[in-house]
Amino acid sequence: MIKVGIVGGTGYTGVELLRLLAQHPEAQIAVITSRADAGTPVASMFPSLRRRVRLKFEDPRNANLRVCDVVFFATPNGVAMEQAPALLASGVRVIDLAADFRLKDVAEWEHWYGQPHASPQWVEQAVYGLPECNRSAIRNALLVANPGCYPTAVQLGLMPLLEAGLVDSDSLIADAKSGVSGAGRKAEVHTLFSEAADNFKAYAVPGHRHLPEIRQGLASMAGQPVGLTFVPHLTPMIRGIHATLYARIRHTADFQELYEKRYADEPFIDVMPAGSHPDTRSVRAANVCRIAVHQPQQGSVLVVLAVIDNLVKGAAGQAIQNMNIMFGLRETEGLWQAAVLP
Amino acid sequence: MIKVGIVGGTGYTGVELLRLLAQHPEAQIAVITSRADAGTPVASMFPSLRRRVRLKFEDPRNANLRVCDVVFFATPNGVAMEQAPALLASGVRVIDLAADFRLKDVAEWEHWYGQPHASPQWVEQAVYGLPECNRSAIRNALLVANPGCYPTAVQLGLMPLLEAGLVDSDSLIADAKSGVSGAGRKAEVHTLFSEAADNFKAYAVPGHRHLPEIRQGLASMAGQPVGLTFVPHLTPMIRGIHATLYARIRHTADFQELYEKRYADEPFIDVMPAGSHPDTRSVRAANVCRIAVHQPQQGSVLVVLAVIDNLVKGAAGQAIQNMNIMFGLRETEGLWQAAVLP
Amino acid sequence: MIKVGIVGGTGYTGVELLRLLAQHPEAQIAVITSRADAGTPVASMFPSLRRRVRLKFEDPRNANLRVCDVVFFATPNGVAMEQAPALLASGVRVIDLAADFRLKDVAEWEHWYGQPHASPQWVEQAVYGLPECNRSAIRNALLVANPGCYPTAVQLGLMPLLEAGLVDSDSLIADAKSGVSGAGRKAEVHTLFSEAADNFKAYAVPGHRHLPEIRQGLASMAGQPVGLTFVPHLTPMIRGIHATLYARIRHTADFQELYEKRYADEPFIDVMPAGSHPDTRSVRAANVCRIAVHQPQQGSVLVVLAVIDNLVKGAAGQAIQNMNIMFGLRETEGLWQAAVLP
Amino acid sequence: MIKVGIVGGTGYTGVELLRLLAQHPEAQIAVITSRADAGTPVASMFPSLRRRVRLKFEDPRNANLRVCDVVFFATPNGVAMEQAPALLASGVRVIDLAADFRLKDVAEWEHWYGQPHASPQWVEQAVYGLPECNRSAIRNALLVANPGCYPTAVQLGLMPLLEAGLVDSDSLIADAKSGVSGAGRKAEVHTLFSEAADNFKAYAVPGHRHLPEIRQGLASMAGQPVGLTFVPHLTPMIRGIHATLYARIRHTADFQELYEKRYADEPFIDVMPAGSHPDTRSVRAANVCRIAVHQPQQGSVLVVLAVIDNLVKGAAGQAIQNMNIMFGLRETEGLWQAAVLP
Repeated sequence: MIKVGIVGGTGYTGVELLRLLAQHPEAQIAVITSRADAGTPVASMFPSLRRRVRLKFEDPRNANLRVCDVVFFATPNGVAMEQAPALLASGVRVIDLAADFRLKDVAEWEHWYGQPHASPQWVEQAVYGLPECNRSAIRNALLVANPGCYPTAVQLGLMPLLEAGLVDSDSLIADAKSGVSGAGRKAEVHTLFSEAADNFKAYAVPGHRHLPEIRQGLASMAGQPVGLTFVPHLTPMIRGIHATLYARIRHTADFQELYEKRYADEPFIDVMPAGSHPDTRSVRAANVCRIAVHQPQQGSVLVVLAVIDNLVKGAAGQAIQNMNIMFGLRETEGLWQAAVLP
Repeated sequence: MIKVGIVGGTGYTGVELLRLLAQHPEAQIAVITSRADAGTPVASMFPSLRRRVRLKFEDPRNANLRVCDVVFFATPNGVAMEQAPALLASGVRVIDLAADFRLKDVAEWEHWYGQPHASPQWVEQAVYGLPECNRSAIRNALLVANPGCYPTAVQLGLMPLLEAGLVDSDSLIADAKSGVSGAGRKAEVHTLFSEAADNFKAYAVPGHRHLPEIRQGLASMAGQPVGLTFVPHLTPMIRGIHATLYARIRHTADFQELYEKRYADEPFIDVMPAGSHPDTRSVRAANVCRIAVHQPQQGSVLVVLAVIDNLVKGAAGQAIQNMNIMFGLRETEGLWQAAVLP
Repeated sequence: MIKVGIVGGTGYTGVELLRLLAQHPEAQIAVITSRADAGTPVASMFPSLRRRVRLKFEDPRNANLRVCDVVFFATPNGVAMEQAPALLASGVRVIDLAADFRLKDVAEWEHWYGQPHASPQWVEQAVYGLPECNRSAIRNALLVANPGCYPTAVQLGLMPLLEAGLVDSDSLIADAKSGVSGAGRKAEVHTLFSEAADNFKAYAVPGHRHLPEIRQGLASMAGQPVGLTFVPHLTPMIRGIHATLYARIRHTADFQELYEKRYADEPFIDVMPAGSHPDTRSVRAANVCRIAVHQPQQGSVLVVLAVIDNLVKGAAGQAIQNMNIMFGLRETEGLWQAAVLP
Repeated sequence: MIKVGIVGGTGYTGVELLRLLAQHPEAQIAVITSRADAGTPVASMFPSLRRRVRLKFEDPRNANLRVCDVVFFATPNGVAMEQAPALLASGVRVIDLAADFRLKDVAEWEHWYGQPHASPQWVEQAVYGLPECNRSAIRNALLVANPGCYPTAVQLGLMPLLEAGLVDSDSLIADAKSGVSGAGRKAEVHTLFSEAADNFKAYAVPGHRHLPEIRQGLASMAGQPVGLTFVPHLTPMIRGIHATLYARIRHTADFQELYEKRYADEPFIDVMPAGSHPDTRSVRAANVCRIAVHQPQQGSVLVVLAVIDNLVKGAAGQAIQNMNIMFGLRETEGLWQAAVLP
């Protein structure tokens, strides 16, 4: 039984970790912390967890996280880089669901996140936790940087093409749409129901923090820098990301076969039959990425559709997948629930 | 391993049965039928079930349902009363998720459902499948009439009061609100997204088919006929029922304690702390009914709030709960998932 | 041309006043204030008003509201009672969309709103702005207390019955459902999209601030104190209130005719044909209350359904209707747009 | 007063024509037809129009449409091409909201719409009703082909760039998202609330009927054939289209100024300030297209965001705008309402 700690469990990635871990046969949630809600039973804040989680939030200053085998940070950016090093030093493995350890270029991180990085030495050692891309490194990682939600969908959607060098990597376009839970559980006007419901808009077109993360991953797959236009949008649903990806074909191929082969052994990647249009609800609450490949009118542009649940394969589910790999469990352990439809 | 058959698996209760049974450790889906979609793989119609359900829909004329230990009817009203008797005769146990065997008064059934009843003899033998009310009869039942969604919420909400005789049973009011999936997966104008979204309305105020079913159940609890006003409403969400129940207090009592005691041993009934307001998402995709009891301003009217997921505790989950009871399994087997929130 | 001022125009009632007044042929918005957003063009905050409203928000300390014929307070509770008296003293008429002047019993106001009242002398002079109830008093009012959204729907729904003395006024029940915009444009967790979407719940069952306001109005109609159970609910739509009202019949009558006669001359009350179920979208963005009356199974309980748009007939539209009355305009001036459906 | 007829008024474009025409000071709805609902009062089907529209639907075989000055066809594709010629022959002007007269290439029309064209001679005479593009031809048109919703948003978004020859017209990408009302008011499973809510998906990626219409328009603006990848998506909102448009810059320029100049005199095109992200609710129920232009990271790809209400500027509103032009009215007559927000 793996002893698990969660730092910062009151946001949406936190409650999703709780939902999934509460049902995980090989994990036991030992500690959960929240500065603001110390003393509150978890199930008082999230009645969905009544009779499933009996812990209280603990004050992070008193919480004994060192008894844990692994600690998940479900905190805002900037927390894990302060607190993880001490845990790591005492032998606790860490999975950070925020962005602190995702960018290998510390200067770029500091540019996009607007603060100095507190532990650049750990940036180097951190493993980027996209299992379909670098599973073996994850296995032995002390510190895993769990990918962002948009980066997960975009990278999984483009990986086979870039690895095979079949498309022009200078002119990639990722038009991505996210459900509102991606913005977190902070009280803000623009994510109020009356602002976000029955509405659709792009945001951060001049530059979104996930852009450098995606570029870093795609460049690694392509073996060279890539040119990427990334436009995120807010769509009136709770969960889900739909990435519509456009790439100019350089060398033609059987793209359907390419994807099926690349992902043949991946338990959580579902390459849909040719002609499919995956919808986000087909992955709701499930740790899976469904992908379809189209070449409209047999033209020069390839269109890839990739969907995930931003809170599962885009956050908590992928984090647990990484935990399973790190601790030698079956990779699907605790993560095989079917999507909730309708 | 229980061999399960499903008749009519293309509606919402059907796909929910599939989702839950695919993860049930003691059940195996052996056969699923659909007249219109015979030959289609289940996962083609419901991509959420890819890699989870590998069956095809079979033509009901060819399907060998007699190999099953139990057959669920997830069909429109009027189908099970035609087809179940032959199965029952050959020793297959049956759980009907439609209304065919719910009303003990055949004439009343024929009045509300507008057709003659095809097997009144089985009406008598059928057991009404509300486990919290008559678990022992379910255990040995050959044929279980699974309760309707509204009736489940209303009966569970009022049962402790009526059994104890503490309220006026002549003037009960049930103001119930349902998500749109309660109307099924038929193509109809009034349940189109553009009709039902951002909208709220009552319907069937002059008389809804669930009214006699609720009255029958409440009368049995009260030991006498009851007076009930029942107003259902359509609310723009996919899943969920919220019943707001009003009863005039005849004898005062510690109502909170009454509910807690009555449901103390029930795994799927959650009596919330005094002062709570359960929300439907706290039961989304979970087999649970959460209940709160209020006596506003210490007045003469008791207000009970009861929420369920209409497709789970209000349909497929309760049907599987009945199956568990019928076959001597742990009652929570395969039904212990936490609700999906947000 | 009536010169209009708006204090506090950055909330939902404020932007709705702006939308309606910008199209009102006899009104001119002269001044609009906002402490926090002074200097910002209105259309920068609300792009829906580009080319329609060219004003900037002014600092309330500098704004010259005394040039106005009428000033609307679209502020939180407690502001108008501080600021309105000086304006009134200089001859400006005031319509308060908040609760400051709605309750005649100052002690009760102070109990429910948790603060001392700053101008009890104006409470007495204030006219409760429900035109269908006291139009003639509004005509000459200096200060109008615009009704709350729930109170508008509930009072209009019950008024004919109480005036005629046909129902038991001791056991009234108002089960009301509101869209989320009723909670305002403040950043709060419980009204985030990811909290309120695909969800339904009751709130404030022990006691909601609109309860004493409704009771006061109903008592006045009935000519005696009333007993009322009021349960508000939050429903996942932006605009709209649906009140489902239950009353025990004391004297039978042709209730359909009663309603039709009572409201025969009311431009904004629509008594629907017998058997109707009004939906909230049928009043979306329109200043109208639609009502239907049912006597299910010819029993002893009357069910009245009343729908309004909480931001129009429940707030800004009714305020402008009051303005029209106060200034001798046609009551429907600027308020005759059809509802937006779908 | 212009006498207006509407053929097929029971869909969403029909009810939107009714809403807007009922408030149009220079138009009078004389006749409205519906085969299926002949005899039904319009306001019985659409209670939002009670007291606003007093007509009944007439049987098209009896309706005297020849008394009209103009007839709108709000019918499925294929109806207007059968019925419009006789009206045109008797001097009635026609605006077709369906696709019958949009494509100049009859063979291409027959390919995409899967039927022979019944009046190719009128195809030639028809004027494509995009006022911002060919207002003068509309003025004298007998027959106007009102543009599709996607084509309106995409063409208005790209027109300034293509006219000025500043971008590569071979590699245009239009990633468009539509509210569900764009699919019409037909009862179909995929647009049920429980299918489309809380969900997002692309559709028709291999080829959508609006593709040739958009290509025809863009080619005309560019003066040469264009290469376009068009991917439509369904988003869970009732109204609204958001087009995200990608073009490779060939010649750099002050793109913001380009757009502002091109649309300076257009009453219904709103070029937003640099850096803006228009949202669909800012045009809800209003006849306006809001556009923003971005050049992310000063790179080689231009991103244009264009939003409309698919039922207004994308259908009924634009049709009335065309009527205003055809009859010499002020172009904004009856179309100047502000958007409904929230």
